[in-house]
Amino acid sequence: MTQTEEQAGMDPRQEFLDRAVQIVGEENVVRPGVEDGYKDPYPLNPGRVPWPGVRPGSTEEVQGLVKLANETRTGLWTFSRGKNLGYGGPEPRDQKMVALDLSRMNRIIEVDDRLGYAVIEPGVTFFDLFDYVQERELKVWLSVPALGWGSVLGNALDRGYGMSPMGDHAKQICGMEVVLPDGDLLRTGMGAMDGTDLGPIFQGGFGPTLDGLFTQSNLGVVTQIGLWLMPWPEVYLNGDVTVEREEDLPQLIDILTQLRGEDVIQNNALCGNVVRAVTMNGPRSRWYQGEGSIPPERLEEIRQELGIGQWNGKFGLYGDKGMVERRLEIIKERFAGLDGFEVKARMYEGAEGARVAYEDIAEMDRTQMAGVPTLKPLGTINYVAENGGHIDAAPIIPARGEEVWEFYQEAKRLYSEAGFDLYIGYHLYPRHMVHVTMIYFENDNEEMLAQARELYGKLLDAARERGYAPYRSHVDYMDRIADGFDFNNHAIRRFQEKLKDAVDPQGILAPGKQGVWPARLRD
Amino acid sequence: MTQTEEQAGMDPRQEFLDRAVQIVGEENVVRPGVEDGYKDPYPLNPGRVPWPGVRPGSTEEVQGLVKLANETRTGLWTFSRGKNLGYGGPEPRDQKMVALDLSRMNRIIEVDDRLGYAVIEPGVTFFDLFDYVQERELKVWLSVPALGWGSVLGNALDRGYGMSPMGDHAKQICGMEVVLPDGDLLRTGMGAMDGTDLGPIFQGGFGPTLDGLFTQSNLGVVTQIGLWLMPWPEVYLNGDVTVEREEDLPQLIDILTQLRGEDVIQNNALCGNVVRAVTMNGPRSRWYQGEGSIPPERLEEIRQELGIGQWNGKFGLYGDKGMVERRLEIIKERFAGLDGFEVKARMYEGAEGARVAYEDIAEMDRTQMAGVPTLKPLGTINYVAENGGHIDAAPIIPARGEEVWEFYQEAKRLYSEAGFDLYIGYHLYPRHMVHVTMIYFENDNEEMLAQARELYGKLLDAARERGYAPYRSHVDYMDRIADGFDFNNHAIRRFQEKLKDAVDPQGILAPGKQGVWPARLRD
Repeated sequence: MTQTEEQAGMDPRQEFLDRAVQIVGEENVVRPGVEDGYKDPYPLNPGRVPWPGVRPGSTEEVQGLVKLANETRTGLWTFSRGKNLGYGGPEPRDQKMVALDLSRMNRIIEVDDRLGYAVIEPGVTFFDLFDYVQERELKVWLSVPALGWGSVLGNALDRGYGMSPMGDHAKQICGMEVVLPDGDLLRTGMGAMDGTDLGPIFQGGFGPTLDGLFTQSNLGVVTQIGLWLMPWPEVYLNGDVTVEREEDLPQLIDILTQLRGEDVIQNNALCGNVVRAVTMNGPRSRWYQGEGSIPPERLEEIRQELGIGQWNGKFGLYGDKGMVERRLEIIKERFAGLDGFEVKARMYEGAEGARVAYEDIAEMDRTQMAGVPTLKPLGTINYVAENGGHIDAAPIIPARGEEVWEFYQEAKRLYSEAGFDLYIGYHLYPRHMVHVTMIYFENDNEEMLAQARELYGKLLDAARERGYAPYRSHVDYMDRIADGFDFNNHAIRRFQEKLKDAVDPQGILAPGKQGVWPARLRD
Repeated sequence: MTQTEEQAGMDPRQEFLDRAVQIVGEENVVRPGVEDGYKDPYPLNPGRVPWPGVRPGSTEEVQGLVKLANETRTGLWTFSRGKNLGYGGPEPRDQKMVALDLSRMNRIIEVDDRLGYAVIEPGVTFFDLFDYVQERELKVWLSVPALGWGSVLGNALDRGYGMSPMGDHAKQICGMEVVLPDGDLLRTGMGAMDGTDLGPIFQGGFGPTLDGLFTQSNLGVVTQIGLWLMPWPEVYLNGDVTVEREEDLPQLIDILTQLRGEDVIQNNALCGNVVRAVTMNGPRSRWYQGEGSIPPERLEEIRQELGIGQWNGKFGLYGDKGMVERRLEIIKERFAGLDGFEVKARMYEGAEGARVAYEDIAEMDRTQMAGVPTLKPLGTINYVAENGGHIDAAPIIPARGEEVWEFYQEAKRLYSEAGFDLYIGYHLYPRHMVHVTMIYFENDNEEMLAQARELYGKLLDAARERGYAPYRSHVDYMDRIADGFDFNNHAIRRFQEKLKDAVDPQGILAPGKQGVWPARLRD
């Protein structure tokens, strides 16, 4: 690409795409501006031109593309399957970039059910891994997020969550293969030794631990990870805690947090409100046709009709039957005598007491806690309109009942002012909780999108005022969230930029990812 | 320091030490060559001159010293308490460095027993933290390593282990304050926001996770960490599995590994041999006065006299009494019917069933599993001589019985050839085990030290041939172990060096740590 060509108005990505044909073949180059290019299916700021992309089939091809990107100074926006819905999907930070789509690299290299790990490439979905395990009758359980069509590796790298005891997916990563921004190939951890089996077995290596450096990162293209899996449990128990009164939320949070801390509840318990149940039984128009948020009186009617609580805690128990039974007893003891709290449970066992059958699990209302991938929640997307979209607003909050209550009040006020229904699906951990709310909107409805953007901005501000921040970010808000990490004149960003410049001096990998821009694109 | 001065034979560290007085005061500058300078108490290569050092009292003083080190190009070897015994203690990599002794920074900033975390400085020992928790009757348990006088932070940064369910200490780190090599101050994770409480509560932040980068690292001086603690359990159970026959080791390993994987056994179970028991009941001369390794026949006599197994598995169970009882039942079921295997257990409960009293725990034979720091194992140091020392040889091995057996045979052969007794204290995890052996020697006995060095080298070679490597390193062996991480022409070291050069261009922080040298000292 010469300066003249650029001045002449040619797409500066043209040379990269033309030469990429030599590496991946014509059929794996998606040309600029075509309708089936890459874009966010639920754009908060519609009207962008779909992105061109390249689809490598191997680590060597990724290396070739990265070297070519250096030569042509082309920004590559990496994703595994592009199903990061509510966060921008496959959409890059700006129009000058090319999508690096890793979905063709979908080999399951190994699943070991003796020690409990898998080695996988970026294109492997939760469905793929599930089918692989099922077909071979391997004695492991997966941890899956709300939707099963996304990349297992991509979810872990973006520090997403599943709903099993091993649901903090980034923590299950054990060893990576990484194409560095100069095209060099790195293996982290014990895998950095030639001829070892320890890569997916032991998380440490020798010297600084690097795996974390490649999560939410633009320092390399991860082409393979080891991922730890849990053993198939003897029984699975589906548990519910329903709470009748809204104002009992703090007590619910505190009890569940303590049970998580003691490892009595083993997975990231969910806590949903009535709106969440409505989205699962939508569309909205079935329940309410008025303007603005559904009023409290109507929500109370719906609640009674659905036979649910104001708050609906959901958890899973896993493992030996006797231990699961004792866990449930403890949980019941903790809620016993509290007016308006009710604990319900159903246990699933295998036919011969050996292990749970997937056929049984598939019937339950929440298969994800049982490690079975699904697309069921996709139905909620069209909550407010047939052509619906959403954005997740999910700040991290200390898991203290009174703090959660205070922020819940604030979120309720903001959603109500903006006229959106407040969907709540908290995720509870031993020390923090993820204050998941979702803004549902109609795609391309510019008035509603403007309101959604305004509400999202106010939620971010309300969180930051309290020292809270989201744990990941929609592509449109990365700079803004990064701005909030302001200790010592943004020391963290200055340090991240220093690493970026050292490792990727041309600034070609995922420029702007999580607010970290390469020198050439920094203001 | 001018070139002339250096040529004149002056210690190049003199200028740094003289100017450091302005920062830390004369009383906190340890001058070169004095007898009470810093050195390994058990040197494998004796005869080195004790190191000079500086002892900052605050983060600001560390920043000042780091800036001064840049100006004078002085290598600073950082440690927290210097009790890294068997790995070199406080000893730097070479004679040109100055010890950066953080022991005066010993504030316990916070311990929160509602959510379960502490915020501490480098100088805080396990005893300090234990006393703090005890005095305030906080409802948390610590995880402590073999000896309690070391630094909690230092142990976690070197990726050391404790013996509780939260014994993988590096994984409990939640947020760091780090003085960077240019004197700038960084906070990682959520703590990178001004005015947040989330620093020690949530392990992620925004963008790449950096905490791992500062473990086994020379990229910064960590002056504070958040560390997760476990809730005080209702009961503690001390468990033993004794195995009569040596050849039943693979079965023991496989069963314990499976129990770890299922989270039935919650802590890193130990597995010791007869020599380990002899060291606990030493000195050696009490049991055997001959040359070379204690012969098998004599070991068998000792075993019967001590009433122990060839293999002695030890584990702890923690939490609710009913769950602990069920855990023990499962463990007993797994070993039931196996000839020569015996499971024994003793449960400790609090007087009112509320929590375990430390007074009871202090009487037990292994307080560390119960989170109580001790110095008892220090007695084993003088196993072979009154002036004794040791080195740990601890490669990581996949936790498969047959692999462990094969490497055990090899270690036995090597120890026997070298005439040392083979001490074994395996640590068992769900997927890997640490093949801990120890070489005991007499300090300053050059003949014995030469043999120890030779044996240690052979153990390293035997491990590397099989794709195994130690998880940490004695200061004298860092380069050699790093050499084994050879995938793609040592891609990992080349990447670590790139980071080092970017972050520490003058190469002043811990040069050579884990084999990573700054540009100015690289070959």
